[in-house]
Amino acid sequence: MPTAFRHPLRVRFAECDPQGIVFNAHYVAWFDVALTELWREALGSWAAMVDRGVDAVVAELSVRYRVPARADELLTLAVGVEGFGTTSLRTRVDVLREDELLAEGRLRHVFVDAASWTPVAAPDWIREALAPYATAA
Amino acid sequence: MPTAFRHPLRVRFAECDPQGIVFNAHYVAWFDVALTELWREALGSWAAMVDRGVDAVVAELSVRYRVPARADELLTLAVGVEGFGTTSLRTRVDVLREDELLAEGRLRHVFVDAASWTPVAAPDWIREALAPYATAA
Amino acid sequence: MPTAFRHPLRVRFAECDPQGIVFNAHYVAWFDVALTELWREALGSWAAMVDRGVDAVVAELSVRYRVPARADELLTLAVGVEGFGTTSLRTRVDVLREDELLAEGRLRHVFVDAASWTPVAAPDWIREALAPYATAA
Amino acid sequence: MPTAFRHPLRVRFAECDPQGIVFNAHYVAWFDVALTELWREALGSWAAMVDRGVDAVVAELSVRYRVPARADELLTLAVGVEGFGTTSLRTRVDVLREDELLAEGRLRHVFVDAASWTPVAAPDWIREALAPYATAA
Repeated sequence: MPTAFRHPLRVRFAECDPQGIVFNAHYVAWFDVALTELWREALGSWAAMVDRGVDAVVAELSVRYRVPARADELLTLAVGVEGFGTTSLRTRVDVLREDELLAEGRLRHVFVDAASWTPVAAPDWIREALAPYATAA
Repeated sequence: MPTAFRHPLRVRFAECDPQGIVFNAHYVAWFDVALTELWREALGSWAAMVDRGVDAVVAELSVRYRVPARADELLTLAVGVEGFGTTSLRTRVDVLREDELLAEGRLRHVFVDAASWTPVAAPDWIREALAPYATAA
Repeated sequence: MPTAFRHPLRVRFAECDPQGIVFNAHYVAWFDVALTELWREALGSWAAMVDRGVDAVVAELSVRYRVPARADELLTLAVGVEGFGTTSLRTRVDVLREDELLAEGRLRHVFVDAASWTPVAAPDWIREALAPYATAA
Repeated sequence: MPTAFRHPLRVRFAECDPQGIVFNAHYVAWFDVALTELWREALGSWAAMVDRGVDAVVAELSVRYRVPARADELLTLAVGVEGFGTTSLRTRVDVLREDELLAEGRLRHVFVDAASWTPVAAPDWIREALAPYATAA
């Protein structure tokens, strides 16, 4: 379980559905919140990366839902970096309530040129900035 | 009640909250769907307007909620044009279930230059294209 | 401008649209976040109110959009209580970026019996709990 | 590629982000729309299943994003049933623009008792109703 970066998240009432639990798609939206906050800590901000000419897009993701989250709960998003490919990055985002694992997400981003949107090699400055957040896959 | 333009909308499960009813903010998102579809009929598309150098932004809106909508219901969005100001447009979007009025929205858009985003006079070709959808305010 | 209760809110990337600005409906979702947080401070939580047999639904709202918010900005939601009717509550939520007013919302809630969902008089314990947040209308 | 059930979907402007493309989480919300519509055709409605005492929750999902969808595009959601486990159902939802595969989703639902929310065996009447939509995995 990744422990390197943690971000608190309060469940919004509107993120819950008539079953009384968080609708599944919102977890995926939270992954983006988690990565944005990791970027803030590691790289200044997502925009700072784009300013240097590199953006990243989600190529693949998966979620395993274990225990439902509910309205107004205070959760923790725990992010770990599982590894880099030539042009890609694999991350894991765990959704926790205290120590209980509610859901686990895995994402594969591809780095692209911020202007042309063609894939580019993962820059060394990103590899280095994210190195402290490496987690066993 | 505007009758000039009608668009069907199926309520998504994810748009409903733990109270079992559509969360209030989603009605506002539906107003945008309704206007986009009116634009398609009246002006080709919203993008066609932007291609001619004009965009529009919401400056003000209000909603009166009368009866809650629920998951999977098939609703009707009824749009009427209430009037133009020099640079603005006032519309009304009614949310109906059969003949029952569930919610009524009112919006004021301001037309802007699509490049500079500064307000511009409502073009005649937009006034003419929307004239058939005029409704008593 | 209400100053009694303030809650920070970070704009999510997914809340912004292709115009690069926050889509209008998300401000309305934020109003619910703001009131939920006010309830936490003033009344324990929204759920604590429901546990005492009272719920509240939005009957009416309006928004005036002044300056667009953008991705990743750190905003402040400022809530003020404008007044009570027999069964209703009027609030104002200002969306601020530092001292700049980006948008102002006004909501009218109606209190309902949490079981039957019929309107009920605003309870004294809610009136008292919200009294410190009164703002000039 | 599943061909058994197809449902049209118009991309909403608000589903697109500042990159000008549909934000990744919305595809996941669309999967729910697609399954709801399949249920309508195959089983009357999702609610009709719940009325018979059975509900279903998403236990796992994955998405592979190939080509971005954009605002106002008219897409097709194509659903296929990949198979049943004892208490589970695997489905695939392809997001298509004409014949082009934009994204492919895979979901695993678990059937639960609608009252107790404990897993139950996939009922025969659901297996039979979904049989026509079987697709090679």
